[in-house]
Amino acid sequence: MRLKLTIAYDGRPYAGYAIQPNGDTIQARLENALAEVLKQPIRVHHAGRTDAGVHAAGQVVHFDAPDGSSMNPYNYLPALNTKLPATIRVMDCEEVAPDFHARFSAIDKTYLYRLSLAPILPPLDAGLAWHLPRQLDPETLQTALGYYVGEHDFRCFAANRGNESEETDYVRRISEAKFVEQADGYLLRFTGDGFLYKMVRLLTGSAVQAAQGRLRLDDLAELVKSPASQARKAPLCAPPDGLTLLQVRYA
Amino acid sequence: MRLKLTIAYDGRPYAGYAIQPNGDTIQARLENALAEVLKQPIRVHHAGRTDAGVHAAGQVVHFDAPDGSSMNPYNYLPALNTKLPATIRVMDCEEVAPDFHARFSAIDKTYLYRLSLAPILPPLDAGLAWHLPRQLDPETLQTALGYYVGEHDFRCFAANRGNESEETDYVRRISEAKFVEQADGYLLRFTGDGFLYKMVRLLTGSAVQAAQGRLRLDDLAELVKSPASQARKAPLCAPPDGLTLLQVRYA
Repeated sequence: MRLKLTIAYDGRPYAGYAIQPNGDTIQARLENALAEVLKQPIRVHHAGRTDAGVHAAGQVVHFDAPDGSSMNPYNYLPALNTKLPATIRVMDCEEVAPDFHARFSAIDKTYLYRLSLAPILPPLDAGLAWHLPRQLDPETLQTALGYYVGEHDFRCFAANRGNESEETDYVRRISEAKFVEQADGYLLRFTGDGFLYKMVRLLTGSAVQAAQGRLRLDDLAELVKSPASQARKAPLCAPPDGLTLLQVRYA
Repeated sequence: MRLKLTIAYDGRPYAGYAIQPNGDTIQARLENALAEVLKQPIRVHHAGRTDAGVHAAGQVVHFDAPDGSSMNPYNYLPALNTKLPATIRVMDCEEVAPDFHARFSAIDKTYLYRLSLAPILPPLDAGLAWHLPRQLDPETLQTALGYYVGEHDFRCFAANRGNESEETDYVRRISEAKFVEQADGYLLRFTGDGFLYKMVRLLTGSAVQAAQGRLRLDDLAELVKSPASQARKAPLCAPPDGLTLLQVRYA
């Protein structure tokens, strides 16, 4: 039986989602909890890797329950949540078709990025927002985000994972890139069929640079419209603090 | 020059406000930052000690700047905040009269206590709310909190600090004990001229017990009205998670 889990986590205490030899990761915590419940090693497959310090409200993973297991999907929630730290919660569990894949079956993903313009960032927001000391112009922010919408070659907004040959197709479709005003700043929202490594943070960093008057809008537009002719890349990667994987949609 | 600082902190990473030999405390962090700024040891005096895991939006402390220091009060904010962890922030600094005392000059203090009835506590709320698995009756909660208002002998709502002779006067005046409904639960609000050790958590725990039908309202009323004749004490101390020192008021 293939099962789909919806996971929420506070990224602050973790070295990122994906398992790694040294470092406390969300995937390792989840696989350990599943192994305890199912009495055998379980490998989970995720919709989107999130970096150290990045949060999730609706990360999705799938795994195959062993043949002998007759556990009801509903029972995984309490079983796993009692074994996970309070900063990682399984919010939902459902049976899916055997060919469902958390990453490859996804239609799109939505990320939120929170900017705080509070004079002093409140302690409870530490690690949950990018604290910007300088005001920014909302109209320029709007224009900058507008450039991102549509199907583009986003090679200027992709960080190198250290293996240059890993990503070859840089074309992604962004269906939504906008913001809403909040009491202390702005909440950016990006929806797309896929995102390159650190792409949301690079899109955010560049839009903020423009909205602070440190990057010309024309120059930003060129990074999206004529990426192959650009020697430059996105000028700033926003910190992980403000980023949350909100949801992953499936057919 | 005597200075008054308003401090906010996330209590989760700390062993409490008050300095102790082993354990990372807010007071130690603050005194270390002040010593760095003022180049000599500084002792701060607080309005209210908060336990491990308890948060503050408006803790108040005072200290005396050394005679030679001509630092403007306004400059303490950036100077201290760059030396403090992001989970502790100095929100305000002002000069006060030489006889001002953070604790003894206070008129009253207000604490908030957050109860969450969410089916699954979201990861970002971990350590910020008391997660109650059972529903509670809001009318009973209201009645229970109403018993607390006024001047009473709160000996049944005082935890022993280990030194029985330390607290002798158990009479305190509570001017406000009420709640507001939130999307996922209730936010309790207590204002009083002073609170005994763990008193807010004992008041909260007992009111919740009543609202869950586990403590008779008459029995709760007796703990407030005839404390001297009671062999029993408050039946439950709420966890530190949901508690925040909101503000301290001065004349």
